[in-house]
Amino acid sequence: MGSAAADAVLPLDASTFAAESRAVVDFLEVYYRDIESYPVRPDTEPGRLRTLLPNVPPEDGEPVDVILEDVRRHIVPGLTHWQNPNFFAYFPMNASTAGFAGQMLSTGLNVVPFMWAASPTATELEGVVVDWMARLVGLPERFLFSGGGGGVLHGSTCEAVVCTLTAARDRVLSSLGHEAILRLVVYASDQSHCTFQKGARIVGIPPANLRVIPTSAASAYGLTADSVRNAVKADVASGLVPLYLCATVGTTGLGAVDPVRDLGEVARRYGMWLHVDAAYAGSALICPEFKDYIDGAELADSVSMNPHKWFLSNMNCCCLWVVSPGLLTSALSSNPEYLNNVGREGAAEVVDYKDWQIALSRPFRAMKLWVVLRRYGAGGMRAYIRRHVDMAKWFERMLDADERFEVVVPRRFSLVTFRLRPRHGGHDDMEALNRKLLMAINASGRAFMTHFVVDNKFVIRMAVGAAMTEMRHVQDAWELVQDKAKEVHATP
Amino acid sequence: MGSAAADAVLPLDASTFAAESRAVVDFLEVYYRDIESYPVRPDTEPGRLRTLLPNVPPEDGEPVDVILEDVRRHIVPGLTHWQNPNFFAYFPMNASTAGFAGQMLSTGLNVVPFMWAASPTATELEGVVVDWMARLVGLPERFLFSGGGGGVLHGSTCEAVVCTLTAARDRVLSSLGHEAILRLVVYASDQSHCTFQKGARIVGIPPANLRVIPTSAASAYGLTADSVRNAVKADVASGLVPLYLCATVGTTGLGAVDPVRDLGEVARRYGMWLHVDAAYAGSALICPEFKDYIDGAELADSVSMNPHKWFLSNMNCCCLWVVSPGLLTSALSSNPEYLNNVGREGAAEVVDYKDWQIALSRPFRAMKLWVVLRRYGAGGMRAYIRRHVDMAKWFERMLDADERFEVVVPRRFSLVTFRLRPRHGGHDDMEALNRKLLMAINASGRAFMTHFVVDNKFVIRMAVGAAMTEMRHVQDAWELVQDKAKEVHATP
Ligand SMILES: Cc1ncc(COP(=O)(O)O)c(C=O)c1O
Ligand SMILES: Cc1ncc(COP(=O)(O)O)c(C=O)c1O
Repeated sequence: MGSAAADAVLPLDASTFAAESRAVVDFLEVYYRDIESYPVRPDTEPGRLRTLLPNVPPEDGEPVDVILEDVRRHIVPGLTHWQNPNFFAYFPMNASTAGFAGQMLSTGLNVVPFMWAASPTATELEGVVVDWMARLVGLPERFLFSGGGGGVLHGSTCEAVVCTLTAARDRVLSSLGHEAILRLVVYASDQSHCTFQKGARIVGIPPANLRVIPTSAASAYGLTADSVRNAVKADVASGLVPLYLCATVGTTGLGAVDPVRDLGEVARRYGMWLHVDAAYAGSALICPEFKDYIDGAELADSVSMNPHKWFLSNMNCCCLWVVSPGLLTSALSSNPEYLNNVGREGAAEVVDYKDWQIALSRPFRAMKLWVVLRRYGAGGMRAYIRRHVDMAKWFERMLDADERFEVVVPRRFSLVTFRLRPRHGGHDDMEALNRKLLMAINASGRAFMTHFVVDNKFVIRMAVGAAMTEMRHVQDAWELVQDKAKEVHATP
Repeated sequence: MGSAAADAVLPLDASTFAAESRAVVDFLEVYYRDIESYPVRPDTEPGRLRTLLPNVPPEDGEPVDVILEDVRRHIVPGLTHWQNPNFFAYFPMNASTAGFAGQMLSTGLNVVPFMWAASPTATELEGVVVDWMARLVGLPERFLFSGGGGGVLHGSTCEAVVCTLTAARDRVLSSLGHEAILRLVVYASDQSHCTFQKGARIVGIPPANLRVIPTSAASAYGLTADSVRNAVKADVASGLVPLYLCATVGTTGLGAVDPVRDLGEVARRYGMWLHVDAAYAGSALICPEFKDYIDGAELADSVSMNPHKWFLSNMNCCCLWVVSPGLLTSALSSNPEYLNNVGREGAAEVVDYKDWQIALSRPFRAMKLWVVLRRYGAGGMRAYIRRHVDMAKWFERMLDADERFEVVVPRRFSLVTFRLRPRHGGHDDMEALNRKLLMAINASGRAFMTHFVVDNKFVIRMAVGAAMTEMRHVQDAWELVQDKAKEVHATP
């Protein structure tokens, strides 16, 4: 490691690179080894970090060890440890050795495949790997490049939603004229992710034209075709134009599943774009026992899922597949002179991924997903998913067998939703009781769970799926839940 | 490294992680050491990679060495080597030892700071580091958190544009009603990046209301206040509503600079949002000698620049600063129940970055930029930038001194734009001549440049700024340009 000044002007010297990168690997090795020693969620107050750091960057560079020491002292203690095996909050965000290796290769090569010519094999690997994923998830051939469709890797589901909404919108506006934007209507359930409503607002759908359709326990919180049909009919009758229906396989709050085939038929009937958001549960679809949940996908226009959630692919990575890439690219393409490709005029058609997404520049995400799939194999990934599902099943069985608890919605994947019942003969406020229970669980630092509210029920969510979670962690969590339930029941 | 099946079900075992990550570091060390041995741009035909890879992922996992060997054999030869020191195309996309270290930490910790409570120090570090950058770049206090504004790290400039356009749009529509979306008009120059027009289309601005205002050599291709004022007046006269003006400091084609103060005055006068896009040249603004180019920034509503371009921060990282965070968050916020924070009801106000961007989930980008700033220091970064600017100056001097060449637009930063003149007394088609020259340069594999067209002139762009570029590479490029010019002049 040379002098700080020389390091700045020659910042990719190969041996400095190797030495400092090894120091970071060593740091992370220790972090993973000790991760269970941290409270899953930190106990910290807003603004603390600012008091520890200066207001301006240093004038002179500093050695990597000093920086790593500051990460250890100042940053790590205030993080929520998403990779802690006792993390059961939100949905998992999996890191893995292979995801990390793939990200290192992507970051190290640092190529920018915004169009084929800007880094040919990076674009081509993306095409290969999204086809691999489509086959694994069990999508119909029409979502594959070989079937006339195709896929792309975005950073988030919201980006996939914004891009497909834009494509759907511009298809309609190109025949009705731009004024018709005021008449476009989009549909989703009250269980669908807030990202959908946000995406719809971003692309200019009038806020009054977002239909959030109620679901109920009767359909296990899945969106029924009838309820969509009724809403659409009413809108058509008032001169509005149904544009886009978002179905979710594995909702965020409860893990509910919308019936894709039924909704697909309604979408077809009224000329709407059907998107299937399988952000979390898409990973489970690689197992045959879950394939029914995506039955009817041939009626969808687009499907997305996030390998960064439960597929070991570190932040961030979202697969989006579409049946008609032409609709996407005609809404999102741009061909300025500085990107024209001297020497390839009139050459064979290639995929230019800049026209499949929001931004121009983009990282080489395909490398990451490819390394994950190669390193673990389809069989390894199925085993990984099933292990979490089995742990969640066990947890659900424990709850079922304990009359103090109620499982609120039957588990579908690895998310268990439950609540504590009042003491025998007690008249506790159920919400207050369960809030207290959740706070006690999280304050222990030994597990981190989050909640949801459905039909006025305050529900605790136990989302199994962190990469390091083993059966013993789920057992510990169950012990913890019981202990804290006892405490909560004991205090008036 | 255990069995493949065990690796998949326990994918973050600390010692496997360390061993395999070291193998990737070794791989990248060799890549950087040998990088000059690759042609900068590969000689490959579309579809080649697909013939080399199977149609489905392997059923069983494979060892990391086998995967790395495939990267070496199949992927690397078909990449465009953006980190090759002879890469002078587009704009640079800097990798660095510190950027890589920061990305490793971010990817390894893999926390998701979508809101403060989801990883407190990750959010707080972002606040610190965007303030650091704002000070370095010389932005007025009102863009800092301490001054009532604030910043966020996005993945791309286009995302920054989409978010600020949405904020500007919704501010206006909240008083005029959503129907007014049809009357909103946005303005930029014919030199501004295509990302701006794309962003405007995404947020639903009618395509007919995108004003692309011509520039000319008289203003060195900067957008003049008069031309904007005239366009705005005409629009106002026809009942339209001026919404947003995008100024660029360092345009993509030519490195031109729009006069921020003059444009700011027009924007103020007509109530438009002024955004300053300094994607590339923002990095140079850390040097006092370039600060004039951002004079008038106090009149802007938002400013963005990409540290992943010329600031050693590996893909991807875009700083966006706004004067009124409330406008951003009221357009982009969402507060579903599953994100409510039990135990923090009524707590102190914190920044929830999900409401400053498109997606919900987001990587811990602050770590990367923070490590870069710590490792190299402000002084190191200035030295880094000045070194490239000096190399570009030298190249420009060589061109100036050689009567075969013409420098088309005076260099401002590290981008030199030039073209070959016809032979003495010749009547060559200038475009054909320079296309031939560019093709010959790039076909050599010894450098990669791209082009631009302005006032019907086909211009070659030499963008100095790759992290490994030293004076000798720029000298070699000059030799190459001269040799190829001779060849091109010699062939009829
Ligand atoms: C069903 C579902 N859709 C969308 C999202 C949001 O994804 P992103 O942050 O990638 O936009 C989530 C995140 O938890 C989700 O569970
Ligand atoms: C001036 C300018 N603005 C915007 C962009 C696009 O940036 P992004 O890919 O981050 O959206 C570029 C890329 O070269 C640029 O030069």
